[in-house]
Amino acid sequence: MSGAGTDSTKAWPEGGPVVILVEPQLGENIGSAVRAMGNFGLSRLRLVNPREGWPNPKAVTFASGADRILETAEVFPDLRAALAGINFVAAATARERGMQKSVLGADAVAAETAGRIAGGEDVALVFGRERTGLYTEEVSLADVILTLPVNPAFASLNLAMAVAVVGYEWFKLASNGALPFQQPDRYPIADKADLLAFFDHVERELDEALFFRSPEKKPVTIRNIRNIFHRVGLTRQDIATLHGMVTALVEGRGTREARTAARLAGGKKPLAGPESSEPTD
Amino acid sequence: MSGAGTDSTKAWPEGGPVVILVEPQLGENIGSAVRAMGNFGLSRLRLVNPREGWPNPKAVTFASGADRILETAEVFPDLRAALAGINFVAAATARERGMQKSVLGADAVAAETAGRIAGGEDVALVFGRERTGLYTEEVSLADVILTLPVNPAFASLNLAMAVAVVGYEWFKLASNGALPFQQPDRYPIADKADLLAFFDHVERELDEALFFRSPEKKPVTIRNIRNIFHRVGLTRQDIATLHGMVTALVEGRGTREARTAARLAGGKKPLAGPESSEPTD
Repeated sequence: MSGAGTDSTKAWPEGGPVVILVEPQLGENIGSAVRAMGNFGLSRLRLVNPREGWPNPKAVTFASGADRILETAEVFPDLRAALAGINFVAAATARERGMQKSVLGADAVAAETAGRIAGGEDVALVFGRERTGLYTEEVSLADVILTLPVNPAFASLNLAMAVAVVGYEWFKLASNGALPFQQPDRYPIADKADLLAFFDHVERELDEALFFRSPEKKPVTIRNIRNIFHRVGLTRQDIATLHGMVTALVEGRGTREARTAARLAGGKKPLAGPESSEPTD
Repeated sequence: MSGAGTDSTKAWPEGGPVVILVEPQLGENIGSAVRAMGNFGLSRLRLVNPREGWPNPKAVTFASGADRILETAEVFPDLRAALAGINFVAAATARERGMQKSVLGADAVAAETAGRIAGGEDVALVFGRERTGLYTEEVSLADVILTLPVNPAFASLNLAMAVAVVGYEWFKLASNGALPFQQPDRYPIADKADLLAFFDHVERELDEALFFRSPEKKPVTIRNIRNIFHRVGLTRQDIATLHGMVTALVEGRGTREARTAARLAGGKKPLAGPESSEPTD
């Protein structure tokens, strides 16, 4: 995914949940998580006691330009302090904690978050240390547990990846799944009259080219050919292109035959292989 | 998300779509993408002309143990060659290409992929170069375009993050959204008789403690208190815990009063603030 999709004239989405990273160890991971936050419209970051201190030049590098998130990030000594002003907390963990809390996937957390924010609450999504995750005491401060469906044989997810997936579900919901672009406006599907005229054209030319060797099989072959083109959902433009292709193939055949005849007269072999089937050959 | 969720006795999921990385530039990104593939049950990797050559030690480091993916990765000179044996291709791109192809999000691609694999087809998910993405000629080899809902003001997604999100949607679907663990089996919600006995207990103790200062407001206050506990969905164990808490508070009050009296007799002030409200104080 290249950077070319970025439109710097567009405004960043406002609001959304707070992301809290508890004692992140490496600036690279903080930066990568921040970049993913920015991609998915999350801009509110709180850091609990980052091991390498703050600010962190490596975090800046890996954030790849999501500076506004870094600049407004707040640092707290512990999770309890970082939860100031928060009404609802989801704690991300890859391990069962044996706690009587609801366990939700990222999609369900996104839905819960959107509903609570719409109701005027503020929500935090809490992620733990790279190696050891959140302490059980920290998880006990959460309303729900957030976890992801992962391969049980290889469950260790990079911190920034976890933030990315949770952010993705958030933005998918917050943007109603709107993709950054769509299939270009299509010309409408062609009138059947145009399609049938194309069938007439191609079937006539195939007849002249002696394509239908067996008269008994001809109706089935024609049905099969028509089905191929029916499946495509051709527009008028598509049909014009196909008419042109058939005409070029027919006329090219004449040209090729004439050239082959000239070559044979000069003692040369005709070209073999893919090249010889190109209509412009 | 810590590594503690990994269970090395579990088998890796088999099958799934092929991931093709076209001319990836950095071993770090290949390795991070491979780790994300492993997390989300994707194990089939094809590389088109990786810039730093192959194998790549940095890719091994960043794959964090997903060696089986690296060991079985295949390298091809171009995308056309890498599509050998593939029936259906989704090309990831962040930019509109003006092509008449369906544009799908990762969830729709996952559904399409699962359906085609179930029908015996093989599917490839193709990701382009870190900076420049896929060339238009490469996108033209795909059946559908895959893109993600992203913040238009900050749309540049890291390659491995894109693989992670697409892999996440794949595994969410392939595993029916099964999370690695669930809320522990709860004791069933308590009989109403047990709940009402608790209400009797707490209301009797509050009466004795002169909590209900205004007889007119007492019925409303009691209703509010009952509503708090009704909302929780208490189990028998929860109710036993609450009975114990009320009893301890009542008995602790006696202890505290006795101690306060002793302190006052010795000329000391009682402890103020949160400490004095702890039942074990």
